[in-house]
Amino acid sequence: MIIVMEESATEIQIRRVAEKLTELGFEVHQSKGERHTVIGAIGTRQTDSQEFELLDGVGQVLRITAPFKLVSRDFNPEGTRIKVADVEIGGDAVVIMAGPCAVESQEQVETIAGHVARCGARVLRGGAFKPRTSPYSFQGLGVEGLKILRRAADRNNLLVVSEVMDSSQIPAFLRYVDILQVGARNMQNFCLLKDLGRIRKPVLLKRGPSATYEETLLSAEYILSGGNRQVILCERGIRTFETYTRNTLDISAIPVFKKLSHLPVVADPSHGTGRRDKVVPMARAALAAGADGIIIEVHHSPETALCDGTQSLFPDQFEQMMQQLRLIAKAINRRIALNRGLQTDSEECGCGSRRAS
Amino acid sequence: MIIVMEESATEIQIRRVAEKLTELGFEVHQSKGERHTVIGAIGTRQTDSQEFELLDGVGQVLRITAPFKLVSRDFNPEGTRIKVADVEIGGDAVVIMAGPCAVESQEQVETIAGHVARCGARVLRGGAFKPRTSPYSFQGLGVEGLKILRRAADRNNLLVVSEVMDSSQIPAFLRYVDILQVGARNMQNFCLLKDLGRIRKPVLLKRGPSATYEETLLSAEYILSGGNRQVILCERGIRTFETYTRNTLDISAIPVFKKLSHLPVVADPSHGTGRRDKVVPMARAALAAGADGIIIEVHHSPETALCDGTQSLFPDQFEQMMQQLRLIAKAINRRIALNRGLQTDSEECGCGSRRAS
Amino acid sequence: MIIVMEESATEIQIRRVAEKLTELGFEVHQSKGERHTVIGAIGTRQTDSQEFELLDGVGQVLRITAPFKLVSRDFNPEGTRIKVADVEIGGDAVVIMAGPCAVESQEQVETIAGHVARCGARVLRGGAFKPRTSPYSFQGLGVEGLKILRRAADRNNLLVVSEVMDSSQIPAFLRYVDILQVGARNMQNFCLLKDLGRIRKPVLLKRGPSATYEETLLSAEYILSGGNRQVILCERGIRTFETYTRNTLDISAIPVFKKLSHLPVVADPSHGTGRRDKVVPMARAALAAGADGIIIEVHHSPETALCDGTQSLFPDQFEQMMQQLRLIAKAINRRIALNRGLQTDSEECGCGSRRAS
Amino acid sequence: MIIVMEESATEIQIRRVAEKLTELGFEVHQSKGERHTVIGAIGTRQTDSQEFELLDGVGQVLRITAPFKLVSRDFNPEGTRIKVADVEIGGDAVVIMAGPCAVESQEQVETIAGHVARCGARVLRGGAFKPRTSPYSFQGLGVEGLKILRRAADRNNLLVVSEVMDSSQIPAFLRYVDILQVGARNMQNFCLLKDLGRIRKPVLLKRGPSATYEETLLSAEYILSGGNRQVILCERGIRTFETYTRNTLDISAIPVFKKLSHLPVVADPSHGTGRRDKVVPMARAALAAGADGIIIEVHHSPETALCDGTQSLFPDQFEQMMQQLRLIAKAINRRIALNRGLQTDSEECGCGSRRAS
Repeated sequence: MIIVMEESATEIQIRRVAEKLTELGFEVHQSKGERHTVIGAIGTRQTDSQEFELLDGVGQVLRITAPFKLVSRDFNPEGTRIKVADVEIGGDAVVIMAGPCAVESQEQVETIAGHVARCGARVLRGGAFKPRTSPYSFQGLGVEGLKILRRAADRNNLLVVSEVMDSSQIPAFLRYVDILQVGARNMQNFCLLKDLGRIRKPVLLKRGPSATYEETLLSAEYILSGGNRQVILCERGIRTFETYTRNTLDISAIPVFKKLSHLPVVADPSHGTGRRDKVVPMARAALAAGADGIIIEVHHSPETALCDGTQSLFPDQFEQMMQQLRLIAKAINRRIALNRGLQTDSEECGCGSRRAS
Repeated sequence: MIIVMEESATEIQIRRVAEKLTELGFEVHQSKGERHTVIGAIGTRQTDSQEFELLDGVGQVLRITAPFKLVSRDFNPEGTRIKVADVEIGGDAVVIMAGPCAVESQEQVETIAGHVARCGARVLRGGAFKPRTSPYSFQGLGVEGLKILRRAADRNNLLVVSEVMDSSQIPAFLRYVDILQVGARNMQNFCLLKDLGRIRKPVLLKRGPSATYEETLLSAEYILSGGNRQVILCERGIRTFETYTRNTLDISAIPVFKKLSHLPVVADPSHGTGRRDKVVPMARAALAAGADGIIIEVHHSPETALCDGTQSLFPDQFEQMMQQLRLIAKAINRRIALNRGLQTDSEECGCGSRRAS
Repeated sequence: MIIVMEESATEIQIRRVAEKLTELGFEVHQSKGERHTVIGAIGTRQTDSQEFELLDGVGQVLRITAPFKLVSRDFNPEGTRIKVADVEIGGDAVVIMAGPCAVESQEQVETIAGHVARCGARVLRGGAFKPRTSPYSFQGLGVEGLKILRRAADRNNLLVVSEVMDSSQIPAFLRYVDILQVGARNMQNFCLLKDLGRIRKPVLLKRGPSATYEETLLSAEYILSGGNRQVILCERGIRTFETYTRNTLDISAIPVFKKLSHLPVVADPSHGTGRRDKVVPMARAALAAGADGIIIEVHHSPETALCDGTQSLFPDQFEQMMQQLRLIAKAINRRIALNRGLQTDSEECGCGSRRAS
Repeated sequence: MIIVMEESATEIQIRRVAEKLTELGFEVHQSKGERHTVIGAIGTRQTDSQEFELLDGVGQVLRITAPFKLVSRDFNPEGTRIKVADVEIGGDAVVIMAGPCAVESQEQVETIAGHVARCGARVLRGGAFKPRTSPYSFQGLGVEGLKILRRAADRNNLLVVSEVMDSSQIPAFLRYVDILQVGARNMQNFCLLKDLGRIRKPVLLKRGPSATYEETLLSAEYILSGGNRQVILCERGIRTFETYTRNTLDISAIPVFKKLSHLPVVADPSHGTGRRDKVVPMARAALAAGADGIIIEVHHSPETALCDGTQSLFPDQFEQMMQQLRLIAKAINRRIALNRGLQTDSEECGCGSRRAS
């Protein structure tokens, strides 16, 4: 930490800062410029730089080390690979997660799950507990929705990812779900994060709509510092002045998170754009920028979907996208994870994945 | 609701939209322009306009009525006044809420509470459960902090407002606290909002850092629709590109909320700016713009505060601010609520409120 | 300037940075922390810190001194007062600038100028050259508009402020206008700024919709460094995610600019909100926060205005606002500048409301 | 245009709106809902919807047709292809534009031009007139810089694109430059736009840092409506709350502009991120999302560059990027434009990789 005193700082003020640093166990170096005295604090103790900003006479405080530790790339330079059953997230293969915005019925989920599995998805996504801006919107099927997801996933060799909204729901999620998702609006629900630090299942943490990279990583740090090392970061769009797209999918978050952290990074072009015709180009872009996975909404009949139909792909769009993603993955020396465990015995499957590859 | 079909919309697509509206109980009017067919839906049924945006051939959907009901100004044109003991929020008198950022000790809180009460504050603020960006920062004293606040408030004829972070904490808050605060980062924690809809104590709801006016009002609607009509809206700064101030206090939110809703509106210039020397001018501005209350951080020794010391006023700054606020209130035909119940028997009190008025 | 080397920086990289600093005339201090080497550069030479950020091995660069000089408060701690005829901007009296958005006709401007002058305005505002988002919108009357403003101002003892859009227009402005306004969209039109640095009339510089405080001050620095010391800063709202108001008027910019710079600061609540019913509360707020002036749109018949009628005050709203502003000014030990030179036949009528209606 | 009257609108107010529409040549349809009267205006006359928003009794105004015409995709559904010499922008082949941030010397530009041409760039970029935030930063070589670019481009079969900052510079640009660039900060410098509408050379228009899609297209409309149909849109990053990257490159702007407009779209990942190690992933992403071109900074020695060295690629990084871009282009059925006219002494070496490494 480096502290630049104000030009008008008195000797007493300078001394107080130095003493406080010494008390905290730092080695202190002081140097006088033409206008400002600069104090360098050497040591590894984690401290809040804000504590110093408010001391009298202090001008600026420069934090030298990142405020996060366990999520830092340094902590695991090779990168974290999260394995669940036969799926690995964060490895060479890019994992596609797909499914409806909201779980509506067993039949709906089965139809979509079968389709996306045949096209190469490895994880089934779907909301059972739905965070809705309005109390008058459909709030989800709850635990029943989780059961529906589980059954549909099992029949199609898929994992399940679904959003947990409150700590009280965790036990049900541990029973039915493989990856617990924290929604963007809960990214700084620290009570929830702490409770997810105590479980031993992967957590997919969505970046909040106005969260900086650093804040996102600190939220992940909450989970890791609780003992749960399996966190997947998810860029899902930030709020900007532009309203044509629902959010602005910040593609650069992908290479940034990959550099700063060892955690896998996925992107959500469905919520990130909110417009069906922008989902495929943005999925391609996310992959080209280095994402470890794409999480995407698909609905066999988006026009009757109970939520977010406007941003769900039609099944054939999803299929075509998968073909494009395979080619782009190859161009950057990666590949799309395959669903090898899937039993298919028909040539005419809704998705010509085998033919395409 | 008005639906503008795309130029290329087919007769079948137009018919489908009309039928869906009729099914939902709307009266349907159709008119053909030179390029676009426009469908008007007449009726009062609450519906999600997004459901229509995704139908084939639909270009734009215009919602005519606001998406919120119970919080709407129409619902209570006179404006809501929330009374707790001898304090009224939303009436002619402007209510000052003050106290430390975080509860640190009984002694600390007592000192500050005594001071702000003598200066005219009616509510004691202080964090017992602290939402902190980093897991390594001070997380608050918890229930013990609530007890400290209660004791200090009772001795100084103050109410207590404090932030509840999770539904599991509600019972403790009901016991020790008068007004439950929802923090900005929890503004869309819908599980918490629903649970707060079931209690019968006032809730001070902070606007999220990237929440629109409408989203903020819809979060309040969650609480009101649960049966709890006592909600106070709080503008505390939004996240913008400017980083010199911690947030950008959106003063215009005050007249906007007052127009759209009947709920009382307070402003938080401490978190809204994050800089001590900007707090007083912004408190004055908020009052001049029509705020029903100001919530402000004061610390008798901000330099040793465990959190947010940089934005806490010194006691004498608070005292001077109160004198300015009294004059500005008068200029706009309001007044600052007085703490009449306070037993003071000394002339030399830290704050010369009686002399000032 | 302080340079923190990366943990992995080599001795050679460290030496290169030190040498470059020495070449530039800085005295160099080096200190080794447990992980990072820190290099302090002492000296007053103005340098671009970015030049160092890109050297190999450099982690962070901390600029110690502000990047602006002539606009800095240090440069003129007393604050700059700009005098034109009998009007002083930046002194104790707050100056009100008012008039139509666009100049439409001599009659229109005369009517409004007379009204606002009687109410206490000292400067007549009005657009002759109009920057319009669409090429199909009314683009202004041009030089003819400037002449109209001049005549109306002279008859009412007002100064004229109007927006100059291009350097080629400067000669006409020097002839007819007292204060040249740079619009928000031209705040970083550096060619224009340089040319305005060469004139000797005051410039009112509007903050760009996404300009930081620092960038705004650097744009002012362009003008001052050209030799023109008469710059007035104007906060007119920034672009945020909130679209209910046209812009978000950043009231905190007022105390921030007043602290960082010696230049006078005015606020524009008309463009800052874009909504007539928010203009008056925001004008009050700006004044309460310390503005040296308010620039505001008034139209005797906003419903027929050729531009921005939605945000123009009606004459009687302006009059009532002036009365409120006088009281608030008094509350913070200031006053509203009076138009003493104005010939009024009645002493008791600060504002000729009866005659106006 | 559809006008929704307020619930409280009187018969007279409704009639006034209808009359005004009729006067303007619209056919008027009126329908009464349970609460609101809705007025539909049928006709093709271009009108400013804001004119109606301010009429008494008007609640909302819904514009049905886009505010731009000539730039609209409808106007040229096939898409515009801009041809200069043997380069086509907007066709199947993706055009790479590369070069230094600022022109520093003939030697510097020659070195870079030769390298990027051998790697497949078709356009040489470089700033001769530099818009700099601070008046104390390097302001460019001016016309001399344009000449340097021209000579280096001619020797390497490249076109030249460079930023024009002011109308007075246009004649020099017409002489030396093939594509005139409008910088982000000048995107709403309407005088400049109008003057560029009168020339007959292509204009590369950068989106402003806080410009919406619609505003960007309206700025392009200024140029087209002046008669110059050769406009290339450029996404170069918007300003958001995130400061880790210099701007947030809004990749979704690419498919949005391609859908709304017929104009070619390029992306600038150098300014869009401001960080060298993010440029390549974002260039890949932009291409994958459908960009017609990439404009990128390359410097043979970024560490000594006079501006923006931190975001310039090293020559070998550029070369590797080009190889990745070729593969990604193929994956989406496009290709990178080749520099066939370039005299190279080896057929098998599109890019001087052996020499560079």
